[in-house]
Amino acid sequence: MDIKTSTSTHLTDEQRIDWLRLIRSDNVGPRTFRSLINHFGSAHAALARLPDLARRGGAARAGRICSEDDARTELAASQRHGVSLVAPGEAGYPPRLAMLDDAPPLLGVRGAQDVLMRPMIAIVGSRNASGAGLKFAQTLARDLSDAGFVIVSGLARGIDQAAHRASLANGTVAVLAGGHDRIYPPEHEDLLAAMLESGGAISEMPMGHVPRARDFPRRNRLISGAALGVIVVEAAHRSGSLITARIAAEQGREVFAVPGSPLDPRAAGTNDLIKQGATLTTQASDVIDAIEPIMGRPIVLREPDDDPLALEPEAGDRARIVDLLGPTPILLDDLIRMAETSPAIARTVLLELELAGRLERHGGGLVSLI
Amino acid sequence: MDIKTSTSTHLTDEQRIDWLRLIRSDNVGPRTFRSLINHFGSAHAALARLPDLARRGGAARAGRICSEDDARTELAASQRHGVSLVAPGEAGYPPRLAMLDDAPPLLGVRGAQDVLMRPMIAIVGSRNASGAGLKFAQTLARDLSDAGFVIVSGLARGIDQAAHRASLANGTVAVLAGGHDRIYPPEHEDLLAAMLESGGAISEMPMGHVPRARDFPRRNRLISGAALGVIVVEAAHRSGSLITARIAAEQGREVFAVPGSPLDPRAAGTNDLIKQGATLTTQASDVIDAIEPIMGRPIVLREPDDDPLALEPEAGDRARIVDLLGPTPILLDDLIRMAETSPAIARTVLLELELAGRLERHGGGLVSLI
Repeated sequence: MDIKTSTSTHLTDEQRIDWLRLIRSDNVGPRTFRSLINHFGSAHAALARLPDLARRGGAARAGRICSEDDARTELAASQRHGVSLVAPGEAGYPPRLAMLDDAPPLLGVRGAQDVLMRPMIAIVGSRNASGAGLKFAQTLARDLSDAGFVIVSGLARGIDQAAHRASLANGTVAVLAGGHDRIYPPEHEDLLAAMLESGGAISEMPMGHVPRARDFPRRNRLISGAALGVIVVEAAHRSGSLITARIAAEQGREVFAVPGSPLDPRAAGTNDLIKQGATLTTQASDVIDAIEPIMGRPIVLREPDDDPLALEPEAGDRARIVDLLGPTPILLDDLIRMAETSPAIARTVLLELELAGRLERHGGGLVSLI
Repeated sequence: MDIKTSTSTHLTDEQRIDWLRLIRSDNVGPRTFRSLINHFGSAHAALARLPDLARRGGAARAGRICSEDDARTELAASQRHGVSLVAPGEAGYPPRLAMLDDAPPLLGVRGAQDVLMRPMIAIVGSRNASGAGLKFAQTLARDLSDAGFVIVSGLARGIDQAAHRASLANGTVAVLAGGHDRIYPPEHEDLLAAMLESGGAISEMPMGHVPRARDFPRRNRLISGAALGVIVVEAAHRSGSLITARIAAEQGREVFAVPGSPLDPRAAGTNDLIKQGATLTTQASDVIDAIEPIMGRPIVLREPDDDPLALEPEAGDRARIVDLLGPTPILLDDLIRMAETSPAIARTVLLELELAGRLERHGGGLVSLI
């Protein structure tokens, strides 16, 4: 099954366990997962080949492969908590999110699944927002919610929670940085409980995962990815919301920003976004006018990449590619060209390195050696 | 002398009196003045033909022609007040202003004439500005002034006076809506006096002219026209500063606007300007980055129009054009095409109607019958 070109999927129970084992194994991220499934045809077949591939990539020690027991334990814990683990194309998996290159193979979803299938708009901003910023986030969230959009945000203090609260009645969605049983910040557990009645929450992390600082940027790609567009309400220079805006632009999502006085440091980031091309937003209609034409467009499925493991690389191919790599990120396309081998062979070597924990994939098609 | 294509002009004393008589005569605005000079070769010759042209245009009663005595009286009163009446191309006439289609044929200038020849940037905004708006206007004015630009504004309360005060040291220019001896608002006479030491003031109105409401939009075209660009700091919906911004855009001037919170009504106009394409401005460098490339460009002189009085219209031409005109403004180009006569003849008829006080010229090449 090619997970990128199916629009309606239903995994069997055994497939779901295999998918969960594969994505929870060491050095397997969403992109690697997709390469493995596309090549071997199933997670089951890929799991059998993982040790061999990692060894060829030069792994110092074998990466841990998630056992069937561990996968069944996670699945049971999720179910006890009301969380379903759904694949792209299954009910409850936000359709826009499924189109990302790095869409989570299995997403933990909780709440009203129909809400997760509706068109979403993300509202994000400062945790220490001003009164005016909070008020405007509420107005915008309520107006867009009343217009039929599901508001998605990060359940954080400040702008996030204001946007969630103002759109509670019509359903609003939280994207979590940790497991569904590790809500951050803890004081928003009540808010989340209220949200789940007519809205939902999603996470790609396993139950029990306590969110660390590095999980938040990773989570932010899901906020923007699930949405048609991202509205940044207040953001200082170098704030997390600006990272979300950058990722949103890379994902081809519309970026909106709320202006503010040049004397207000909490507007410095949003004013900069507008200078860089974000749509200046002072009312819901600014967003709807830009979003409506996109909604009419059918979701375009990407063509699957070349089969990454079509050919067996030789030792010379591996050595050449490792020599070309270093700690400074380099464009995948440049690397393949410089490697003077076929793209398929270069991709196979990279996949082996990744499974060996030696390759890091950055945004924008950049890779570096760890 | 063609006043539009000369870059260095010096009128004789007699010419200056004739120019003053012509521009102060009934129904002669800057555009009509230019047409008359271009056709008759001099103001002196045009003055002799005025009664005849107005009669052919169907004037109910002959328009008043300014007498030589009245012109000499105005000139003397101006000189006593330290005001020089200068023509486009003469020292003291801001060079960008001279390039307007409706540049005043004679401009009353006072203060440091060299300052009037330097590159200018206009800063305008609300009279009832917020503290933050006033503070930002000061910062911007000081920074741009220190960068070598002359700040030009309207001497009004609020943003205007804040911009003037912050740029006093390097020279700042006020554009007056009334005569040089009728300062509005009166409480800014002290500010103007301080400005005149190293800056200047300009007006196209005669001494003694008390500014009326309709003089302010007319004056605003000189603020934007003298400048390379116009910065609107705070402006509510439908405020005068937005008219200045619209005129500036029509004149080909850069338009800058300072953003503000969507909840601040004094930012509603500036946020709208940014939505319409004005450059979002949070610091002086935003303005300088956009203005510097323009400064390098030589001022482009417009080709003179076709000679408007080259042919004698017949009675049928006049009747057809009057029939086509009405109280609803129509594009001059459309009118000429519909009149089924030569452009030169159509323009002659329009000039006659104008001198008869029957034609109104609006912005954007629109005309209507009064």
